[in-house]
Amino acid sequence: MDFEAFFKSELDGLHSEGRYRVFADLERHRGSFPRATRHTPEGPREVTVWCSNDYLGMGQNPAVIEAMHEAIDHCGAGAGGTRNISGTTHYHVLLEQELADLHGKESSLVFTSGYISNWATLGTLGQKIPGLIIFSDALNHASMIEGIRYAKCDRVIWKHNDLNDLEAKLAAADPKAPKMIAFESVYSMDGDISPIKEICDLADKYGAMTYLDEVHAVGMYGPRGGGIAEREGLMDRLTIIEGTLGKAFGVMGGYIAASTALCDFIRSFASGFIFTTALPPTLAAGAIASIRHLKASPFERVRHQDRVKKLRMMLDQQGIPHMHNPSHIVPVMVGDAAKCKWISDILLDTCDVYVQPINYPTVAKKTERLRITPTPLHTDADLEHLVSSLHQLWSRCALARQVA
Amino acid sequence: MDFEAFFKSELDGLHSEGRYRVFADLERHRGSFPRATRHTPEGPREVTVWCSNDYLGMGQNPAVIEAMHEAIDHCGAGAGGTRNISGTTHYHVLLEQELADLHGKESSLVFTSGYISNWATLGTLGQKIPGLIIFSDALNHASMIEGIRYAKCDRVIWKHNDLNDLEAKLAAADPKAPKMIAFESVYSMDGDISPIKEICDLADKYGAMTYLDEVHAVGMYGPRGGGIAEREGLMDRLTIIEGTLGKAFGVMGGYIAASTALCDFIRSFASGFIFTTALPPTLAAGAIASIRHLKASPFERVRHQDRVKKLRMMLDQQGIPHMHNPSHIVPVMVGDAAKCKWISDILLDTCDVYVQPINYPTVAKKTERLRITPTPLHTDADLEHLVSSLHQLWSRCALARQVA
Ligand SMILES: Cc1ncc(COP(=O)(O)O)c(C=O)c1O
Ligand SMILES: Cc1ncc(COP(=O)(O)O)c(C=O)c1O
Repeated sequence: MDFEAFFKSELDGLHSEGRYRVFADLERHRGSFPRATRHTPEGPREVTVWCSNDYLGMGQNPAVIEAMHEAIDHCGAGAGGTRNISGTTHYHVLLEQELADLHGKESSLVFTSGYISNWATLGTLGQKIPGLIIFSDALNHASMIEGIRYAKCDRVIWKHNDLNDLEAKLAAADPKAPKMIAFESVYSMDGDISPIKEICDLADKYGAMTYLDEVHAVGMYGPRGGGIAEREGLMDRLTIIEGTLGKAFGVMGGYIAASTALCDFIRSFASGFIFTTALPPTLAAGAIASIRHLKASPFERVRHQDRVKKLRMMLDQQGIPHMHNPSHIVPVMVGDAAKCKWISDILLDTCDVYVQPINYPTVAKKTERLRITPTPLHTDADLEHLVSSLHQLWSRCALARQVA
Repeated sequence: MDFEAFFKSELDGLHSEGRYRVFADLERHRGSFPRATRHTPEGPREVTVWCSNDYLGMGQNPAVIEAMHEAIDHCGAGAGGTRNISGTTHYHVLLEQELADLHGKESSLVFTSGYISNWATLGTLGQKIPGLIIFSDALNHASMIEGIRYAKCDRVIWKHNDLNDLEAKLAAADPKAPKMIAFESVYSMDGDISPIKEICDLADKYGAMTYLDEVHAVGMYGPRGGGIAEREGLMDRLTIIEGTLGKAFGVMGGYIAASTALCDFIRSFASGFIFTTALPPTLAAGAIASIRHLKASPFERVRHQDRVKKLRMMLDQQGIPHMHNPSHIVPVMVGDAAKCKWISDILLDTCDVYVQPINYPTVAKKTERLRITPTPLHTDADLEHLVSSLHQLWSRCALARQVA
């Protein structure tokens, strides 16, 4: 077989569907986020980033920066080993205490990413608990889906956020089988929020564990940034809360918070936890500083919500079609892969506005979109420039408007 | 089902087999590696680390530290997004160029860990290339095994480093089926090295791609630290070279180096690459500095090999049984999980020597061991203290000696 020819022809397929991904080569600047330098073959240009998942700009927070510097000076670059073999530093221990406290759980366990925390935890539970059935929301993230596949246990997909469908499926399953319901709080692409309380009620009724991915909510919702479950006073009803250190916390890494026995079980059996180098101490230190800051400071959360509200209002005024939802994610709908990429290219090249097009497989075909994420650091002038750029583009290209 | 009781009883099983893992809580100190502070309930103690995979002490290298500081000051904490959605910074671009150059390949692709690079690359190739058969060495690392399982393609396990068995299995397979041989250079637990040239010869004969994990060799072997394949002038014969940034390079992250089309294919299709936050710029910057340093400086490699040679000689003099192999890994064999943990505990508690016991599932039962990894920063006095501690323990506990 000619492997090179095979790879090239697969890539040609992506090109012809308009969904070949070109990564923008960016240089962020501390202190001037959301501004960044974009490196292009024609030289550097300054752009405004409108699609970062550093939702609160914590990657620029002085306490986080300071903590990272301090940890590097204190103990060097990497952890130097897996968690078991010399890679557990005092920062990891403190970080796990901080996270357990954040979610009101006995314990927590840190992984190298949110992806790995979902994959390893769901995979290990599904493999090890005899007869476990995982009830998985149809729109769960790729990392959860891969984890559930990896588990090779029975899985039942229920309609996205549909309690009737979930209950019907729970009721249809063997009453004696151990069960787990796996879902997210804020869904990252549509920005809708799941009915956590009602799902927990069903879990109680059918004796199921609950697994909640709060990746797009931690830091941003709840009085201490514990997520939607904290905001709604539901943290104790969830068996496992999973989150990331790489989005609102501004650093990198992932975790679960749960009972001591459950965390110890995953720690002891999950391949994706055991057989990999631990997070560098500097990342653990930065994450600790970020979590502590956001536990105490409501400022970023308030300002974040204010920016989101203002952007939605301005989009409505111009009739730019966007999906209404109760979160901080503002999806401007385009509905075509090639057009979505083309709009994004024009915004970048002529307006210095950077919003990456979101195409299949991240979202379903025909729902391609610009996923806009305002941060507390976007100014009124930034908002105006973004909306007027979109407005001009919508006129120039005769794109459909939406009546507010 | 009582989930908590289930987790506890599984953990009890580990305890009773003597293979429950207790993580040492360490604080490394920049400038005084391999010394670290160990936090215990009775207070802190200074220990010497003998099981780090920061093989060359690069986690303490001033150029690496400096580059990490500089990147934090320049652009903040995290990348703020997936590689596609605002998370590609200029540091990532430069790092991928550096790695491609290191291995003499057209291109490279950086992942969040070596674990993920193996899992995602093998998994994606096996899933996407119709009919691919992966021929996997029996002792391949957990991340490769999980990747090959994930691929759900046909897999054939061949006896560890056994060319006859590999050839017999290649010859028995459908001649028209696309094939890939997946193996490592330095095997991390026994420290033996695979016959790369002969495996490539078989690959040519049977039209197979080759996938080589050089995780325990990059930075340490070859004139520029390109690994065993560089040392033996074989890099161009491998389709894919995989490595980590978390061991000899002292930071964290993983990568593959291969043709442009292959890297672009993985970049475009691998879930574990696409759907996760990118490495923080500071880690990419630290890795670049580390790779550049080790490309130019043979000093660490020479001193490393010297320390290894000296340790082996001293162990032989005392008749401490260790596995002879051509690499830098010195396995002192114990052969029993509980005893291995017990020796390690005594070394730690009474000699301030930290060597984590290596038990099942990391190695096969009855081959439990202390896996000792000398670094260029271990002094003669460190070596003497280690060997005399082992000597006393061997006498006190009447452990078997080995005739040199
Ligand atoms: C819902 C969800 N879960 C998990 C992840 C993975 O988290 P991380 O980026 O830390 O790997 C993501 C996105 O990256 C996500 O959107
Ligand atoms: C052979 C081998 N491959 C891959 C890995 C994973 O690399 P990383 O620690 O960067 O995840 C390891 C160990 O951790 C390993 O021993």
